[in-house]
Amino acid sequence: MTAQGDGPRYGREHLRHVIGYVPGVQPEPSAIKLNTNENPYPPSPAVLAALTDISVRSLQRYPDPTAAGFRECAARLHDLQANQIIATNGGDELLRLAITTFVDPGRAIGIVTPSYGVYSVLAEIHQAPLSRAPLMDDWILATDTSTRWNDAGAQLAILTNPHAPTGALFSLDAIERLAASFSGVLLIDEAYIDFVDPSRRYNAAELIARHSNILLLRTLSKGYSLAGIRMAYGMANAALIEPMLGKTKDSYNVDAIAQRLGTAAIEDRAYARSTWDRVREERARLTEGLEALGFAVAPSEANFVLASVPSAAGASNARAMKDGLEARGIYVRWFDEDRLRDRLRISIGTGAENTAVLRLLGEMVHERGAGRST
Amino acid sequence: MTAQGDGPRYGREHLRHVIGYVPGVQPEPSAIKLNTNENPYPPSPAVLAALTDISVRSLQRYPDPTAAGFRECAARLHDLQANQIIATNGGDELLRLAITTFVDPGRAIGIVTPSYGVYSVLAEIHQAPLSRAPLMDDWILATDTSTRWNDAGAQLAILTNPHAPTGALFSLDAIERLAASFSGVLLIDEAYIDFVDPSRRYNAAELIARHSNILLLRTLSKGYSLAGIRMAYGMANAALIEPMLGKTKDSYNVDAIAQRLGTAAIEDRAYARSTWDRVREERARLTEGLEALGFAVAPSEANFVLASVPSAAGASNARAMKDGLEARGIYVRWFDEDRLRDRLRISIGTGAENTAVLRLLGEMVHERGAGRST
Repeated sequence: MTAQGDGPRYGREHLRHVIGYVPGVQPEPSAIKLNTNENPYPPSPAVLAALTDISVRSLQRYPDPTAAGFRECAARLHDLQANQIIATNGGDELLRLAITTFVDPGRAIGIVTPSYGVYSVLAEIHQAPLSRAPLMDDWILATDTSTRWNDAGAQLAILTNPHAPTGALFSLDAIERLAASFSGVLLIDEAYIDFVDPSRRYNAAELIARHSNILLLRTLSKGYSLAGIRMAYGMANAALIEPMLGKTKDSYNVDAIAQRLGTAAIEDRAYARSTWDRVREERARLTEGLEALGFAVAPSEANFVLASVPSAAGASNARAMKDGLEARGIYVRWFDEDRLRDRLRISIGTGAENTAVLRLLGEMVHERGAGRST
Repeated sequence: MTAQGDGPRYGREHLRHVIGYVPGVQPEPSAIKLNTNENPYPPSPAVLAALTDISVRSLQRYPDPTAAGFRECAARLHDLQANQIIATNGGDELLRLAITTFVDPGRAIGIVTPSYGVYSVLAEIHQAPLSRAPLMDDWILATDTSTRWNDAGAQLAILTNPHAPTGALFSLDAIERLAASFSGVLLIDEAYIDFVDPSRRYNAAELIARHSNILLLRTLSKGYSLAGIRMAYGMANAALIEPMLGKTKDSYNVDAIAQRLGTAAIEDRAYARSTWDRVREERARLTEGLEALGFAVAPSEANFVLASVPSAAGASNARAMKDGLEARGIYVRWFDEDRLRDRLRISIGTGAENTAVLRLLGEMVHERGAGRST
């Protein structure tokens, strides 16, 4: 098999047509980065202490293959048992494991539209057709969502809550109805759950005891400011966790440092909560500022907002605005997708970062002749 | 879906029959751990410096999704291009990615027997039947190996070199013949390659330019004493790397700390080489010591030896010896598998550790009435 170019081609046929997920740009640290929903505040001082405490010698040995210490800590946090928890190499791994474990190739996966782009890429790789249930115009779930998924024979459905990229929070009742009526495993991707207003009293972990098909995804990337270490976990009935923990995950899927730092982070919940409070305050301020500039902002319970550019500025200008911001060192996200092309998704930054993006957007809106909506 | 136990069962049917891979025991740090082939010497001081240099703030952000810095460094090391390298979350991830990327479910995967147990578990999860080519009695490749794999229609074959659990090194010529005659992708798992005697002049990276179907796996777990951080890489023709790097791997598969520490480790090759030299010296000493006790030891180019217990002690006693060692705080590996049940696989430890295991084995052999072979 000596040829290159003119020789045999290796790789599964269907993968030639898959377009890989393209993550948001990772610019220089000096840039204002509001494009991939990281937490704008640093990790807890307890994470620094745990990092300082790592002995290099300990890295000689393999990590705990099941991350038992971390899982016990997470179980206490959510009033569950450790066998109801799996630790994963970021949320991406849990998404992939759920597909590997619960979906036969050829069988459908349910999603709503719009959705996080990774879901459809993972489904394509697995040769699982998508069953798409469009969200209603105000980004709430259509009443026939589970019927659509069931009719397609979906073995797994994935729903982000709060939803991305809209920021909308589906109610606990809506999630429970979906779980009760859907025949497959319902994975609720709670990547942004920590930023939900506590007055909403949203806690899907309490559904696990009543619904054997609910699988919750939590990540430390956003709420705990640890996107760099790749640490997430799943919560479900032990019968759903067991095949992922004991069979389908890679033997040593979470490294020793991530286990230590992740445990320190979730144990210092008071610190994390203080960053969530600040993000919520800034979310309100950014929303008001954008509305004052004529943007329409969907109500968000996440650490980002989805904002429609002022109509006078023209729907086609959202992308131009994203490019304009980028040219001046501010990164936001624009999606080339139905119902999203006239919008920008802006992660909540620090106060100074949000002020900077508001100032620049204000200049652009005025240059383009769009009046203030106030 | 409210039931537990008496309700619907989720999960793919075939997975119910899969028995997950069981990694070697991870005993307390005070134990003498010669069961999972870690390097007995600590990582390079450059790794400590890199760890100390990690800013906790930097962990707020996602890591480089393609680990570009590490890949460039690895490319220089092997005289390749960065697009011929993929960084992975341990060697396990590369094994899984190769299966996901190159094997259609239902199509075969070639292995030799015996083999590292993870290969067959990954194949079962993927619903890929195994095409097994038994090694000859002296652990060399049978001449019909690729014919067997081709006849089974294998799209991928996986071979550990040096071989595990025997330690045998297949020659570069043997690997090249296999690559030339096998119709699928040939993954050479070089987990133990760093411990090969340099006088063997074995360098499979030079085969990449001539064989578009060769994929090499390297890990930092053994050679660089970094099993804890989960860092490995693959090397191949860019056409094999591209679909794994751009499509099938998780978006951010290698965390930021592993990228930094891994780069520091492979850049300090002189230090790593000094540990490899010491492991080789100890391998020779342990081999001699075992032979003096009446064990038959297969020639090993890895950081472990596979030793048959003295025949007077009885083949059935290998397991008892493993248990006896474990009761006294020394962990070695025993495999309940054809051609291996009368043997122990012992990782090369520090001088003191090897002396301790030799002393205990000596006591056991004498207790069991086996005379010294000298």
